Amino acid sequence: MASLPAGPEIERLIQLLAKLPGLGPRSARRAALTLLKKRDILLDPLANAMRDAASAIKTCETCGNLDTTCPCAVCRDARRETHVLCVVEDVADLWALERAGVFRGRYHVLGGALSALDGVTPERLNVASLVARVSDGVDEVILAMNATVEGQTTAHYLMDTLASTNAKVTRLAHGVPVGGELDYLDEGTLSAAFKARRSL
Amino acid sequence: MASLPAGPEIERLIQLLAKLPGLGPRSARRAALTLLKKRDILLDPLANAMRDAASAIKTCETCGNLDTTCPCAVCRDARRETHVLCVVEDVADLWALERAGVFRGRYHVLGGALSALDGVTPERLNVASLVARVSDGVDEVILAMNATVEGQTTAHYLMDTLASTNAKVTRLAHGVPVGGELDYLDEGTLSAAFKARRSL
Repeated sequence: MASLPAGPEIERLIQLLAKLPGLGPRSARRAALTLLKKRDILLDPLANAMRDAASAIKTCETCGNLDTTCPCAVCRDARRETHVLCVVEDVADLWALERAGVFRGRYHVLGGALSALDGVTPERLNVASLVARVSDGVDEVILAMNATVEGQTTAHYLMDTLASTNAKVTRLAHGVPVGGELDYLDEGTLSAAFKARRSL
Repeated sequence: MASLPAGPEIERLIQLLAKLPGLGPRSARRAALTLLKKRDILLDPLANAMRDAASAIKTCETCGNLDTTCPCAVCRDARRETHVLCVVEDVADLWALERAGVFRGRYHVLGGALSALDGVTPERLNVASLVARVSDGVDEVILAMNATVEGQTTAHYLMDTLASTNAKVTRLAHGVPVGGELDYLDEGTLSAAFKARRSL
């Protein structure tokens, strides 16, 4: 790419914006221009918000969630059930489940999924703390891993690891997504949906 | 949308990120999480880059380009032709043409396009300074407006306004984009390409 007719400060801003997920080189340029043109209403507030969030953010020592308090809002909430634990790979997954509003228990964030390729071993995930929590009076562990090879490998590993505890271990259902059309679904999903069919 | 199980600082960061072009609510959440997880290598450098760019940025008084110097790099470059002027709506268009590396003259940034709907009148664009520059020894004015209704309205308006000067006024060609397939093109583009066909 030819260099822009703009100073090094602008180039650097674009380079860093392009590292955000969802922004490529082209959209990073657009974002940088928007920031520079809307300095008072966007650039300055965003720079401040980033500084505020960076100084306020904490990783919850109980579940691994990101929040401005430790324990986090979920772990602190006395109305949530303590005997059901939902295990997720990442904080983003926890947020997604909270948006769905379907779960009223506590979470446990693994911090990734097992991957031989990327050298992610069980020791690099929050597995030991999970086993400790489950042994401490949890009735059900819901494994809410991604439906990827890494996610399912991790789920199987956790199932084996948690077998020594008394907790019931469940996983999310696989099947046709709500609103999905069969014609557009892959064979794996269709096959899973068929095998798990239910009587009406 | 249900609120996230995260503090107000994180909510605010997500809200501001979602205002960037190319980022919606969902990708803003992903971007915020990435920033918070990569604080040292992404969040802090980006916050600094934003501050640096904000304090360094200047609008070129000659052409309207954004740069860290005034006059900007293009206006300052003595190797560029001074008798050809390329008029663009926005700084982003100037950057796009520079990336193509097709033009070696100077630019003039209008700061938008005429729009009755949005109340953009000729007085709100850099038209007066354009006429003054063209009258001051410019041979050719290339109108590089967007091929939108607003862009073409602006081009027609500028053509009339610049008629009083001695400069030749040209516009970019319309036609089939390089790499484009006829099957996917709209009728307007096909019609323009047909009318402007050239003998081989």
